[in-house]
Amino acid sequence: MNPAPLPALLRVLAGETLERPPVWFMRQAGRYLPEYRAVRATAPDFIAFCHDSEKAAEVTLQPLRRFPFDAAIVFADILLIPGALGQKVWFEAGEGPRLGEMPSLDSMAGEIEASTERLSAIGNTLALVRGRLDPEKTLIGFAGAPWTVGSYMIEGGSSDRSKARTFAYEQPQAMDRLMDILAESTARYLAMQAESGAQVLKIFESWAEGLPEDLFHRLVVRPHQIIVRRLKELNVTAPLIGFPRGSAAYAEVYADEVDVDCVALDTACPAAVGLRLQRTKAIQGALDPLLLRAGGPELDRRVDQLLEQWGGGRYIFNLGHGILPDTPIAHVERVLKRVTGK
Amino acid sequence: MNPAPLPALLRVLAGETLERPPVWFMRQAGRYLPEYRAVRATAPDFIAFCHDSEKAAEVTLQPLRRFPFDAAIVFADILLIPGALGQKVWFEAGEGPRLGEMPSLDSMAGEIEASTERLSAIGNTLALVRGRLDPEKTLIGFAGAPWTVGSYMIEGGSSDRSKARTFAYEQPQAMDRLMDILAESTARYLAMQAESGAQVLKIFESWAEGLPEDLFHRLVVRPHQIIVRRLKELNVTAPLIGFPRGSAAYAEVYADEVDVDCVALDTACPAAVGLRLQRTKAIQGALDPLLLRAGGPELDRRVDQLLEQWGGGRYIFNLGHGILPDTPIAHVERVLKRVTGK
Repeated sequence: MNPAPLPALLRVLAGETLERPPVWFMRQAGRYLPEYRAVRATAPDFIAFCHDSEKAAEVTLQPLRRFPFDAAIVFADILLIPGALGQKVWFEAGEGPRLGEMPSLDSMAGEIEASTERLSAIGNTLALVRGRLDPEKTLIGFAGAPWTVGSYMIEGGSSDRSKARTFAYEQPQAMDRLMDILAESTARYLAMQAESGAQVLKIFESWAEGLPEDLFHRLVVRPHQIIVRRLKELNVTAPLIGFPRGSAAYAEVYADEVDVDCVALDTACPAAVGLRLQRTKAIQGALDPLLLRAGGPELDRRVDQLLEQWGGGRYIFNLGHGILPDTPIAHVERVLKRVTGK
Repeated sequence: MNPAPLPALLRVLAGETLERPPVWFMRQAGRYLPEYRAVRATAPDFIAFCHDSEKAAEVTLQPLRRFPFDAAIVFADILLIPGALGQKVWFEAGEGPRLGEMPSLDSMAGEIEASTERLSAIGNTLALVRGRLDPEKTLIGFAGAPWTVGSYMIEGGSSDRSKARTFAYEQPQAMDRLMDILAESTARYLAMQAESGAQVLKIFESWAEGLPEDLFHRLVVRPHQIIVRRLKELNVTAPLIGFPRGSAAYAEVYADEVDVDCVALDTACPAAVGLRLQRTKAIQGALDPLLLRAGGPELDRRVDQLLEQWGGGRYIFNLGHGILPDTPIAHVERVLKRVTGK
């Protein structure tokens, strides 16, 4: 008996070029789906929802029932780690996240081990999903990256990150220590996700834009390197996807210096940069969510263009950012049909 | 008698590498200066202030009296063109710009010639400044680029430009025509500025971030190419600075395809990209305004780093974005001393 072939997503991450790229969408479990909104309506508190493994597993699986996606990504949030380290995090209806005062660095450093235990529900979600997911589909775990998460912690919510960048300039040692604490807790959290069934781990640096090169190294490259090294030390073998969003100009620097298996690209990346990255890694991206929502001939044309420009190498089809809540389901179906033939 | 030597800024734009780079700061005439706030207090309406040549000339010259800047940039706003094309533009105190409904494309196309006449006050400002400015200092004129200006016109104010990008997807022909109208009116406006005394012209594409490559070509490269071509047809010989902010990943594409003399860089550009650009053009940038405001040893270190990494080629020292209103004057003095030795 032959062993089951690797799922498409894992094959690309292992170095293969497939005839049709595997596909999944960031935030594919989300508000554009009525079945998601129905479950969400039963869980008024968003953070509690993320910690409710049964509900989180259900919404994780929903998009796979509708669309021929190659992967499920665990339903969770990048701001669970600050909560687990002792900072209050909540969501106001119709607004972004809100965070209470950041605990002292010493306090958070002492909570790292406990923080992973406090996130055990996400491990339970992964185990539930893995038990219910088609074996041909890949299960992705994820965490927010230290700079992105740390900027929310410093700013107290969504922002242009100017306070966090100023903190990096005015208190460089404190900032570097915050990055160290977050890198360590993130690595342990990701390792726990891998133990619980995640086959791929993605690091979301959602807000890397605007960083001068020296800060990009201090706040993005170095913390990501720590996470990668610690995952190896923790014997995690799941392939890694790094997503330094808003920094295509540094994509090659990032790919050279951070030992991930795949670099995810946002909407604004030249085709030539992706092609150069493909010589050594897989790439993922980069359809504009605004175009997915708009639909029409421009959408078809751009999907074909992405398949044409990057499909000859290691490529995972995806959006360049999360799917928008008011995206018509028919547009998702249309793109998936174009990409998968199904 | 020898002719007077070219001012430092013009020498760099003509291809020279100087021992010390010339320096000016975006928004150097602005709220961080008490003498600016004093004049501004006498002109409650911001748009009227821009059209008041005597006051605009005064604030244009103010920073040159305090600091050893190499250039003055005319005090004006990137949103004067929509007003001149018939769209209402106003500023609410403490908020960003607001714009009324965009006129029809046909209506605006019929107003292009008149729009330049309606902006004659900015020509008068330039003539006043040129008459009062030290001959060793360079006078810069500027305009907003079509995509940036057009996005305000479509959105009705400051935004994440998602409505404008959606418009480009859903109504591509209308969008291209809007770009054509704005490119033509911008070229004529810049030509008028050159005739009035501007020695350098800068095209501010303040919001190029996030654009997929195909849109970057349609909304940035092509309109800038039209402006450059029309300026040549109008016999304008002033050197050009292009500033495609937020798109360092496309900086080399931009430099290859748009015939400007200098590419201005924002805060987030790898040193290596700047060095490659310097083979064929001057570059300008890219100190983080947040670091200028923060001050301290990190500021000194970064100024030295910028001088070191790019000072060996054609380089104009500047910020990567406009100076922040709460920037201490002592920090500006400190940076200028470090750059100029004065």
